[in-house]
Amino acid sequence: MSKAQIGVVGMAVMGKNLALNIESRGYKVAIFNRTGSKTEQVVADHSDKNLVPSYTIKDFIDSLEKPRRIILMVKAGAPTDATIKSLLPYLDKGDVLIDGGNTFFEDTMRRNAELDNSGINFIGMGVSGGEKGALEGPSLMPGGQKEAYDLVAPILDQIAAKADDGQACVTYIGPNGAGHYVKMVHNGIEYGDMELIAESYNLLRNLLGLSVDEIADIFHEWKDGELDSYLIDITADILTRKDDEGTDRPIVDVILDRAGNKGTGKWSSQSALELGVPQSLITESVYARYISALKDERVEASEVLAKPKAFDAKKLDKKEIVEKIRQALYFSKIVSYAQGFEQMRFASEKYDWNLDYGSLAKIWREGCIIRAQFLQKITDAFDKQPELKNLMLDPYFTEITAKYQAAVREVAALAIQAGVPCPGFTSAITYYDQYRSAVLPANLIQAQRDYFGAHTYERVDKEGNYHYEWYHEE
Amino acid sequence: MSKAQIGVVGMAVMGKNLALNIESRGYKVAIFNRTGSKTEQVVADHSDKNLVPSYTIKDFIDSLEKPRRIILMVKAGAPTDATIKSLLPYLDKGDVLIDGGNTFFEDTMRRNAELDNSGINFIGMGVSGGEKGALEGPSLMPGGQKEAYDLVAPILDQIAAKADDGQACVTYIGPNGAGHYVKMVHNGIEYGDMELIAESYNLLRNLLGLSVDEIADIFHEWKDGELDSYLIDITADILTRKDDEGTDRPIVDVILDRAGNKGTGKWSSQSALELGVPQSLITESVYARYISALKDERVEASEVLAKPKAFDAKKLDKKEIVEKIRQALYFSKIVSYAQGFEQMRFASEKYDWNLDYGSLAKIWREGCIIRAQFLQKITDAFDKQPELKNLMLDPYFTEITAKYQAAVREVAALAIQAGVPCPGFTSAITYYDQYRSAVLPANLIQAQRDYFGAHTYERVDKEGNYHYEWYHEE
Repeated sequence: MSKAQIGVVGMAVMGKNLALNIESRGYKVAIFNRTGSKTEQVVADHSDKNLVPSYTIKDFIDSLEKPRRIILMVKAGAPTDATIKSLLPYLDKGDVLIDGGNTFFEDTMRRNAELDNSGINFIGMGVSGGEKGALEGPSLMPGGQKEAYDLVAPILDQIAAKADDGQACVTYIGPNGAGHYVKMVHNGIEYGDMELIAESYNLLRNLLGLSVDEIADIFHEWKDGELDSYLIDITADILTRKDDEGTDRPIVDVILDRAGNKGTGKWSSQSALELGVPQSLITESVYARYISALKDERVEASEVLAKPKAFDAKKLDKKEIVEKIRQALYFSKIVSYAQGFEQMRFASEKYDWNLDYGSLAKIWREGCIIRAQFLQKITDAFDKQPELKNLMLDPYFTEITAKYQAAVREVAALAIQAGVPCPGFTSAITYYDQYRSAVLPANLIQAQRDYFGAHTYERVDKEGNYHYEWYHEE
Repeated sequence: MSKAQIGVVGMAVMGKNLALNIESRGYKVAIFNRTGSKTEQVVADHSDKNLVPSYTIKDFIDSLEKPRRIILMVKAGAPTDATIKSLLPYLDKGDVLIDGGNTFFEDTMRRNAELDNSGINFIGMGVSGGEKGALEGPSLMPGGQKEAYDLVAPILDQIAAKADDGQACVTYIGPNGAGHYVKMVHNGIEYGDMELIAESYNLLRNLLGLSVDEIADIFHEWKDGELDSYLIDITADILTRKDDEGTDRPIVDVILDRAGNKGTGKWSSQSALELGVPQSLITESVYARYISALKDERVEASEVLAKPKAFDAKKLDKKEIVEKIRQALYFSKIVSYAQGFEQMRFASEKYDWNLDYGSLAKIWREGCIIRAQFLQKITDAFDKQPELKNLMLDPYFTEITAKYQAAVREVAALAIQAGVPCPGFTSAITYYDQYRSAVLPANLIQAQRDYFGAHTYERVDKEGNYHYEWYHEE
């Protein structure tokens, strides 16, 4: 019997779907799961497929051709370490382990270095697109040894999503943790996109007083324009759906407003803080989920804390405000991506990853959750200027922000006056104004720091560090 | 010769000043520094003081009475570990090491546990007040073994700052890393206070077009009211100072607008993200410093990115807006402290610290950088309701926020329209509106997460986790 060309460890839904995706491209796929019954179930459900099940690690390894290519689809963290440890005694130099989990990039850097010492290649691969993407074509972000990537590239190319121009949504991201880092920022951006959509919905509903049906129509309109993207598309769909538990209300109206998270948005913000790069919009989106989780406190506070004075929405031209909200959404999305790409530049410099920003946007055009027409514009921007420091400085984005800034200002100001919280929109316009300020009031902060902590200050007119004699001159 | 009652390791300015402070209360103080010349210098400069210099660790330890009490004032991180390692062979069970550096609380938790195994007590102590505070009376935040705290409490009580009611600004904070954690949040709050002052200054200057002298007068007025605090006080002073390098311009006008940081604000935000507690105002303040550091990019962007349409400040009643900015500042400060105290509550629950929030505000009333009249109100609030979940829910703060919310809304909206970035003010009012929202649009986010990731959702009308059949119902 010929050996399998690739193996997948972990038969939960993501691992199973990825194995089926690979098999569907004509490969023989070895599969293994710590609990054998799961493997049996997969084989039973897909008996017509070219899957090679094993129930011991030794058998699993023996069923693979060399150099072995093994994708781990297990829980991030300790389970991943345990899986690697259990495989290691059976592996040979030159084999390629691929971690397709949602792993923290520093863990990937550590594992890559440790395994590299034994001659085992280790790729940390971001996989985006959810269960459906894993089965039909995800966006893949592999990072690790380039020569190891070359050994798996033909398979990855085939299983990845294809953009409209036929290009596969996978590319070599960079050494060690680069793939998982980029996936982490992707997820952070996803938090931002979702928050901005939620704020738009909230304004349409609670500022303008529109019904769920009316809002659904608006999102259906929006998805065919500049905002064309998977998340706008599913939002339009969600808003048309009725509860399936018997209430006949719109499904959004029976869903509790307490948002969960899996931690990748949090990691993304923590890393931005570590790198010293401003990433306010994603961070506000993470915090918005945290506030949503404080449901009991919010209900109590809603009865105690004062509301703004009644806001008369009747004075507003609804159609005009709807269009301004659309513009605010697009503007804020641009700011969010500008921050995310600036974060990746800081990371690339710190960790020596030599990231190719244009190709990152390219592989996000299909397969992943943030897929959108707009990503082509980002690729174009970096193709023209590979050294571009901030997306907003590219002519296309400069023009859009110039065109839409008035709308964001108006929408954010209205929201603040009416008491409809929009942390995404307000942080977007605030960041824009900070970023375009040649002078910020940080001079006063430096004066304070020098005053109480003798931290010294720099001057506008000459080089060097100065300390002012605050205490001796009174 | 009688032994010294306490020792200080590290004769940089903070260590030296703390040693002199202790000596001034009638104690004999052993001093040591890795480089002996620094110790010699301290002794030479203060030959009339009761200091016992040593030039080897053995001599230093021998010069101390038992159980030994040793304060480490060395650089946080590896130097602290190295210092502990060098002392350890000479220490006995029951000795007390006190780390007075700006140490990350997780390091303190680790060291406390490691040393506890050898019977050595380890206290991580936050010290706030800068050089001057260390010498004249800092605010002290010691955490570690309670019995070890009791051994040093009499000395700490004497060297700490005294509030108006005579109480020393020191208390037992809690086990292991509690002291350094509270100091970290203190510093985060300090970032927030400084950012809010900088924004007020920026609005007075760039929205209202006031001169530095006029702004100095306003801060002098503010410091005698509700805003009475050290940072407002030094700001008023700073704004009256002229450059001492020969330009005769206001000192703030020659200081470069690029703010530095020592990392404690960043830690504070990273920890809030880890704990799942919203802390947007401090985080925006950290990001504001990061953006200020991107000076070259900002100068470039200022020439490219569009400004808002010209804003006519002449229409504004200046006196009225000045008062509204004052109200916005106080309102935002309340939000910032509400977030900081909620963060400490989350930390206390996670790490089992049993923090006493009222006493934390109490020991910040004097000595530290954020000292302010207003902290008494926080103590009062927790005295009345020890289980208070969020400061804004205390009647005093509820009343102030109700009174001032209109002003923040107007100031934030004006700032956004005029293009003067106010991340602190806008995040304050946004958080306020989120926190008082019984319903947030997180229901839509949960619908999206269930749609693409089958993450399930909770319902408003019954218990349990539900998954909607998004794909089969079209």
